[in-house]
Parts: sequence; C-alpha cells; structure tokens
Amino acid sequence: MERITIVGMGPLGTSLGLALKQKTLANTELMGTSGDRKNLAAASKIGAVDQASPSLGRAVEGAKLVVLDVPISDTRAILEAIGPILDNGCVVTDLGSIKTPVLAWAEEYFPSGVSFVGGHPLPKKAPLALEFADAALFQGIDYCVIPAKSARREAVSTVVDLVEAVGAKPLFMGAQEHDSYSAAMQHLPAVLSSAFVTATSGSQGWRDMHRLAASEFSDLSQLASNDPRENEAISLANPDALVHWLDEIIGELYAYRNQIKERSEDLLETFARAWEARARWEANAVADDNLPGVPTVGQNMGSFLLGDRLAQRFRQMTESEDKKKLSWRQSKRR
Amino acid sequence: MERITIVGMGPLGTSLGLALKQKTLANTELMGTSGDRKNLAAASKIGAVDQASPSLGRAVEGAKLVVLDVPISDTRAILEAIGPILDNGCVVTDLGSIKTPVLAWAEEYFPSGVSFVGGHPLPKKAPLALEFADAALFQGIDYCVIPAKSARREAVSTVVDLVEAVGAKPLFMGAQEHDSYSAAMQHLPAVLSSAFVTATSGSQGWRDMHRLAASEFSDLSQLASNDPRENEAISLANPDALVHWLDEIIGELYAYRNQIKERSEDLLETFARAWEARARWEANAVADDNLPGVPTVGQNMGSFLLGDRLAQRFRQMTESEDKKKLSWRQSKRR
Repeated sequence: MERITIVGMGPLGTSLGLALKQKTLANTELMGTSGDRKNLAAASKIGAVDQASPSLGRAVEGAKLVVLDVPISDTRAILEAIGPILDNGCVVTDLGSIKTPVLAWAEEYFPSGVSFVGGHPLPKKAPLALEFADAALFQGIDYCVIPAKSARREAVSTVVDLVEAVGAKPLFMGAQEHDSYSAAMQHLPAVLSSAFVTATSGSQGWRDMHRLAASEFSDLSQLASNDPRENEAISLANPDALVHWLDEIIGELYAYRNQIKERSEDLLETFARAWEARARWEANAVADDNLPGVPTVGQNMGSFLLGDRLAQRFRQMTESEDKKKLSWRQSKRR
Repeated sequence: MERITIVGMGPLGTSLGLALKQKTLANTELMGTSGDRKNLAAASKIGAVDQASPSLGRAVEGAKLVVLDVPISDTRAILEAIGPILDNGCVVTDLGSIKTPVLAWAEEYFPSGVSFVGGHPLPKKAPLALEFADAALFQGIDYCVIPAKSARREAVSTVVDLVEAVGAKPLFMGAQEHDSYSAAMQHLPAVLSSAFVTATSGSQGWRDMHRLAASEFSDLSQLASNDPRENEAISLANPDALVHWLDEIIGELYAYRNQIKERSEDLLETFARAWEARARWEANAVADDNLPGVPTVGQNMGSFLLGDRLAQRFRQMTESEDKKKLSWRQSKRR
C-alpha cells in the first residue's frame, strides 16, 4: 500500500483529493492532514481522503508523495518540520504561486533522498471555500511543473503522473520565469483588489457610498478577503517583479485617466484593446497573436482567422445596434 | 389588462421579468422587446415575458410601466424614440448605473403626462448572460429609486411597488449623489479591470505570461469584457467623479508599491485594513463602523461587538497558525 498525503486540505488540495479518489488508484491510500481540524473533518466527510490525521508527522511518515496545500507564510516551517521525517525516495510537491524561495527551502531542509518538484495548477475559476471543492477542477487546465535542481528524474515523473491523473496538462517552467509571470498574473491582482478596497473604504464618503457597492465591487474586492498575512507574504516573496508591475499599472491607469479627463476619442479604442485581449485569452488564442506589422515565422492561418472573427464579432455588435436604432426610429415614424 | 414592458431583455431585465412572473400579478400583461431577436426569443422561451415583439413602438404602446434594460450608449436614442408613443400617465424606469444625464434626457423628450423614475438594483452577484437570469436576484437587495423632478407622486409609488414586488428594498437617493458613488463603486472597477488587461497583455512577455493567467486574472479582468462602447460611455457619462477616483487609486497603489519596495512592516496592517473593510461590507456592517478614537453619537453596542468579533477572528487565525506550527514542531521532535 503506497501513501499519498495532502497537507493543508484547503479548497484546492481537497479538490485534488476528490480528483484522485475518482481514479480509484490501486494500492494507494490517500491521507489528509491539516492544522484546522474542522477543515480536516469536512474534507474527510466529503470523501477527499481515505484517512485523516491531525498530526503532520504521522500523516507524512511513510508517504511516497506529499502534496502541500498551505499558505506561503507557513511553507518554510512545514518543510523544516517534515524534512527529517520523510522516507528516502519521497517526492514533495506544492500548489502555490511562488516557487523560487520554496525551492531554496526544500534544498535547505530536505535530505538528499527526498525530491521537491514544485507544482502550480491554473484553474480559470478557483473554489473559494471547501464546500465548492470540485474533482473536475483540474480537467484540461495547465499545471506548472517546476523541479528543484536536485530533484531526481523519477520524482519529476511522479509529479507529471499526478498532474495527468487529475486531468491536467503539465507545463514545464523555470522557477524564476514562473515567479516573474506570477507577479503579474496572481500577485498584482491581489494588490489591485486590496488597494481598491482601502482607497474607497478609507474615504469620507464610504458610510454612504458603500450601499452602492454591488457585483462590480464584490468581484473586484474578492482577493482583498484573502488572509492578509498571505497577501503580505506573496507580495514580499517576489517584491521586485511586483513593484515593476505596480509601476506599469500606475502608468496605464494614468493614461486612462487622461483619456477620460480629455474626453479623448482614443478611449473607445483603449477599451476595445482590453476587450479583445480578454476575449483572446478566454478563447485560448493569445499564442496565435502577433503585433500588427510584425509577421513572424510562427504566424499561421489561425491567427488571421481569429483576428477576422474578433473583428467580425465587433462589427456585428455595432451593426446590430445601428439596425436596432433604425427599427426603433421607424417605430417612431409609424 | 395593464401592460408592463421590458425594453432590452438583458440578463438583468430578464431576471426582473422572471421575478414579476412569479408574482402572477392580476390583470397584468408582461411584454418584452429587444433589438436582439435571439435574446428576445430566449427570454420569451424561459418565460420571462407573456408577449414578445421586436418592434419597440408596438411593445411600449399602451404600457402603464416601461422598464429600460439598455446600455447607457443607447438610452438617449430610445427615450427620444418612445417619448411621443407613450400613453399619458405612463411611468418609465431604468436599471442602469448612471442617472444625471438620463433624467435630463427624460425631461427633454417626454411629454408632461409621462413620468421618469430612475431605478438601480444592486445585486451582489450579477448574471453575466441570459442563461443565468434568476428570479431570486432581487431578493433582499437595495434598489436605488431616483425620481426625475417632474415625476408625479403616483409614478414614484408605481416604481416602489415594482421594487417591492420583486423582493428588493427601495433606497431613495438624489441623482448627483448616486452618480458620484457609482463612479467609485461601478465605473472605477471597469477602468481598473481594463487597465489591468491592457497593461499586462500589452507587455513584451504576454505571449509566455498569459499561460499563468488563472482565476485571479479571470476575476479581475471580467469587467474588461463588457462591450467596450459601454465601458467608454459609462466613463464619459460622469468623467469628473471618475477622474477623482482614478487619482485616489493611483495614490493608493503608489503607497502599496512603496511599502512593498521597502519591505515595510506596515504592509500587513495595510492588507488587514482591506480585509476588514471587505469583511464588514460582506457582513453588511459598514454603517456601524466608526474611526477608532472618534466616537460619535450614532455609535451603538453593535459596532463594538462587531469590531470585537473581527479582531477575535483575526486573532484566531493567527493563533491557530501558531498552534499548528507548534504541533508540527512537536511532531518533528517525537
């Protein structure tokens, strides 16, 4: 009987447990542990693990694979604590959005027989709470795989097997490259969300204004309700890249501000660029994109077709509005 | 038989239709119209209206109440088109997030027998597409009611009846006050979302970086996928208030940037303020809030209790982490 242990049992780790349980892996026992006993009991109850133990040591002892689903602010202490307990040949992976410091800690605290291979699944919608844990979460998504330098080849295979077992696609990447992208795609949103909340809620008008806070406020402020220690930790884990992106977004906001202040005719084009980039991302079509006038060898027919489709969609929106106005004016003239 | 006409049949208007249909109002016919025939057919199919007509003129003719669910960029043309058709005594309301120009257009285009009473429902989650239209959307939410100066008292009652019929609570407000709050709570998020998308997608690294775009990117960029003409129109409908809020958020982001750059000890407190304000808003407890050390006459026991609860929750988070670390260290020492 081989043991896979999930440490933390947050919404993501619990989803991973559910996905693994659906595979009914032969000869494998799924063990869960968490510092939060209520979470652990809930994850156990919905069947995300076969066994649960509140003791971290007992849970990881003898495990072949350990999956960490813990905040970055707890990661170092946990790696230090489990290092001496893990079996020779054990593979440890994680689910977090920062890799450079985690890989360094693993090299520091793990004996040579234990391999660390970082992981970072990229679902388009993440469950916010345990009750939304979902076995299908990993289906078809990209899942970064970032091995430590000292990781054995078999350890990398073990994590790739895990990624494929839950239905995801492994995406190999270097730690520094990963973290620089993560700063823009995950950590910048957390800072934007928090700054939006403090700027508005700290204003004199907030007592009255907050009543107008509806779905737009709710969506944009979502990441401000992360544990503040986690938002601090992700900001300070990779501060230079994040500061770069904050400078970029401040400059961009200033450009929007000026276009709005000047009632600029370019503003529609600016919002249309945002709309198109979002639509391309949603259609998974970004990689086919090329800067206009800069054809590259990799450019294929797909990119032209997609560009046409988007332009057409935009034209249709505009035309249907014109037609609508026309028919409404006709109604008026009846 | 009295007629209520919904013009536009977007996700919000369709939800309103569903909510009204659940009331099975005696002697009332629900009519829908839209420039988008596919939308109109879909809304009709799910039972949001009793009758559907692609002709705006025929749909509003003889109506006692007209509800506009149309983009702000279309509103003026529609008010102009329907003004001469509406019955004497007809009441017109809308569902949008801007009121000052709409009220002015209504005064300009409506004859004296027609009253305009603006409306703005504030759901915490808005349906993104017609298939998510939901009769329960309005249950218990605030719903701004903003009468034009010339609106008759009975017209205001008609709109309050509509608000209460769908389960919402009327919130009376002046148009300018409403629009200044809306700039911060609805229009600023749309600009932040779009600026986030153009700043990241316009960068050299986007071709590689976009693969790391996951739930955080998806949530924060959601409002960038509004029709760009609508994002432009809401930005230019109330530009001074929006520019004020853009200046505020730029200053706030710069403060976060400096705290991150300097690895400041204040950063945790900053994220904790965002976290607390979000938690208070979610608990509907903002109005009980007071600045520390600034007791006011309105301060009641509730605010102290709530403050305590939040502080306690934060302490518990911190303590449970310390305990967790302790038990994990104990595991190590076994």
